[in-house]
Amino acid sequence: MNRKALKKISYGLYIICSKHKDKANGQIANAIFQVTSKPVTIAISINKKNLTHELIEKSEKFTVSILNKNASLKFIGPFGFKCGRDTDKLKNVECKMGKNGTPIVTENSIAYLEAKLINKINIYTHTIFIGEVTEAEVLTEDEPLTYDYYQEVKGGYTSKNAPTYNLEKEEN
Amino acid sequence: MNRKALKKISYGLYIICSKHKDKANGQIANAIFQVTSKPVTIAISINKKNLTHELIEKSEKFTVSILNKNASLKFIGPFGFKCGRDTDKLKNVECKMGKNGTPIVTENSIAYLEAKLINKINIYTHTIFIGEVTEAEVLTEDEPLTYDYYQEVKGGYTSKNAPTYNLEKEEN
Repeated sequence: MNRKALKKISYGLYIICSKHKDKANGQIANAIFQVTSKPVTIAISINKKNLTHELIEKSEKFTVSILNKNASLKFIGPFGFKCGRDTDKLKNVECKMGKNGTPIVTENSIAYLEAKLINKINIYTHTIFIGEVTEAEVLTEDEPLTYDYYQEVKGGYTSKNAPTYNLEKEEN
Repeated sequence: MNRKALKKISYGLYIICSKHKDKANGQIANAIFQVTSKPVTIAISINKKNLTHELIEKSEKFTVSILNKNASLKFIGPFGFKCGRDTDKLKNVECKMGKNGTPIVTENSIAYLEAKLINKINIYTHTIFIGEVTEAEVLTEDEPLTYDYYQEVKGGYTSKNAPTYNLEKEEN
C-alpha cells in the first residue's frame, strides 16, 4: 500500500466547537462532508482522545467554522496542537454563541454550521459523528482554506490525532 | 438556514466502483474522507437509489479513483448522470481489475484506493459506508480535481442523488 495515495484526497480546514456545562473547546478538523440534503446532515471524524470528542458525546451538539484561506498558522496552530483540557483555546479568538448553545469561531471563518447529534459510529481510534444541521450562515465571500493549501503553501503540520496522520515509516 | 454555507465545504471528485457477480458499476462521488490512520479506513456517502449502493451492500467491497484536474466533463458526465442499471459505464474507459476483484477507473485518475466494507450507517436517503483500505497506489503526480473547480471552472452540475444536491428554492 502506498499511503501517499491517501494524501490525494481533497479537504477543507475547519474548527469544530463543542460545549458541555461550563467546558467549551474548539479543535481543527479536515474530515467533514455533507451526507444528505433533505434533511441536511453532515459527518465529522473525531479522535477519541480529544476533548472535543468527550464534549460532543455529552452535549450531543457541535458547530463547524469553515476557515478562510487567509487564516494564519499562528491562528490555526493552537486548535490543532494544544489540548483543551489544559488551555482555553476559545479565550483569545472572536466567537459568537450559536442558537444551539455551542460557541462558533467567527474569526477567520467564511461560514458556519450548527448541528445536533443524530447518530455516531465507532471506527477504531475515531468516532464518526453525524449531525443534523440546525443553522447555517455565510459570513464572507472569501475563499475557503483547503488542507492542501495549508500544508503545501503555508507549511502547516498534521496533528498526530488527525485522521490523515500517517507515519512515513509505515509506508510500504 | 442559509444552505449556501454548505457549499463552502471543500471536496475532491472521485469515481467509486463496485462489482457483484457479473454486474460492475462506477459512479461519481465527492463525499469521502479518511477516518483513521491505523488501520487506514475511509468513509463514503452513497445514495440508496444508486446501483453502486446495491453492489457495495452485496459485495462488501469498493474502489475509489481520485480524479485528475484535467478530467473533462464529457468523461465525468456519464458517471454522474446515467444509471448503471441501463448502461455499462465502465465499457469505454480505461480500467484495471483491483486485487479485491473490483474494477478501478485508471483513466484521468491520479491515485486509487481499494477497500473492504467494515461498517455502515443509515442516514435518511444515504448510507455512509466505512471501508478498510487494502490497497492504495499513486498513478501520476498531477493535481487532483476539486469539486469547486469542477463546478466553478468546468461548469459541472450536481446530480440530484448527490449529498450536496440542494434545491435552490429550499434556501431560506
